[in-house]
Amino acid sequence: MIVELSVVPIGVGESLSRYVSEVIKVIRENGVRYQLNPMGTVIEVGSFSELGELLDRINEKMQEMEVPRVYVVVKADWRKKKTSMEHKVRAVEEKLG
Amino acid sequence: MIVELSVVPIGVGESLSRYVSEVIKVIRENGVRYQLNPMGTVIEVGSFSELGELLDRINEKMQEMEVPRVYVVVKADWRKKKTSMEHKVRAVEEKLG
Amino acid sequence: MIVELSVVPIGVGESLSRYVSEVIKVIRENGVRYQLNPMGTVIEVGSFSELGELLDRINEKMQEMEVPRVYVVVKADWRKKKTSMEHKVRAVEEKLG
Amino acid sequence: MIVELSVVPIGVGESLSRYVSEVIKVIRENGVRYQLNPMGTVIEVGSFSELGELLDRINEKMQEMEVPRVYVVVKADWRKKKTSMEHKVRAVEEKLG
Repeated sequence: MIVELSVVPIGVGESLSRYVSEVIKVIRENGVRYQLNPMGTVIEVGSFSELGELLDRINEKMQEMEVPRVYVVVKADWRKKKTSMEHKVRAVEEKLG
Repeated sequence: MIVELSVVPIGVGESLSRYVSEVIKVIRENGVRYQLNPMGTVIEVGSFSELGELLDRINEKMQEMEVPRVYVVVKADWRKKKTSMEHKVRAVEEKLG
Repeated sequence: MIVELSVVPIGVGESLSRYVSEVIKVIRENGVRYQLNPMGTVIEVGSFSELGELLDRINEKMQEMEVPRVYVVVKADWRKKKTSMEHKVRAVEEKLG
Repeated sequence: MIVELSVVPIGVGESLSRYVSEVIKVIRENGVRYQLNPMGTVIEVGSFSELGELLDRINEKMQEMEVPRVYVVVKADWRKKKTSMEHKVRAVEEKLG
């Protein structure tokens, strides 16, 4: 399953990269493959439960950093036929020529 | 934590209400408070892990219904200070007068 | 076209209902049908251009309120076959029985 | 303003790369800077109105391809202080070290 997550700390000012870099560290520490983009982080996970546990760890980290409110946006793409982050982009690029 | 989820089955035609009603049934069966709106379902859950387990059950139901691909959008609002679905709407409506 | 929008002001503290109520006022002033829910506002618009113009007006209001950063999440459901906010919910509720 | 858009055609089967590549072509033809990722396309636009017009053109293309229903997810990040797609990623990477 391919998932994009965007974690938006609220109540800590307008500069968020310090928090996003800690989100990435949690993802790395959990051995999850990821790709960072300007609006979120795309990861590969085996199930929604695995995703939920990862998000709880990220949220705990935000609480350690004293973030009073955390807004999270997730888009998930589950397919019976397994795929990968690289394959999805390649399928589009091949058609673009 | 207040969460909105939108489950979009792909590859089963354009009419999706039959699938969405099954999503609601899974939410009910799991004893989760919910509010349906035209673009998603708002629920209250205790953690992201709880949300992940619910989404896995929803996804299993979609697979029973032979959906080959499931697209899911989640928005989550976690606050240190506990709140409810009703409270959030009331806080806005009070300011509207 | 049915659209849900969530406007999240960043850099103005953790309490956001004061800002959300102003978003609703802009929607009302533009004569757009809407339904408020705990995670967003569902509206009916004729096109993405109409939606874009409304979002610019909302964003201007946020700037008047001195919001330094605005995060916006939009989900849009366009169908060839016209529908309404009420119809979408009713179609699901009928199947729930 | 940095925006990520995900265009999900509904009612045309489960393989969507043929449609996504046409979305990219519309973005290119409109001279908009973009970055494709496995879950969406990040672009830079000057305003929500500009975004709305682009989405209408994308939607027209989907209709030419006989897509009966189009689901669109947009995340937008507007800042008073101008930034770029590259800058946002670099700010995080620098903190990761």
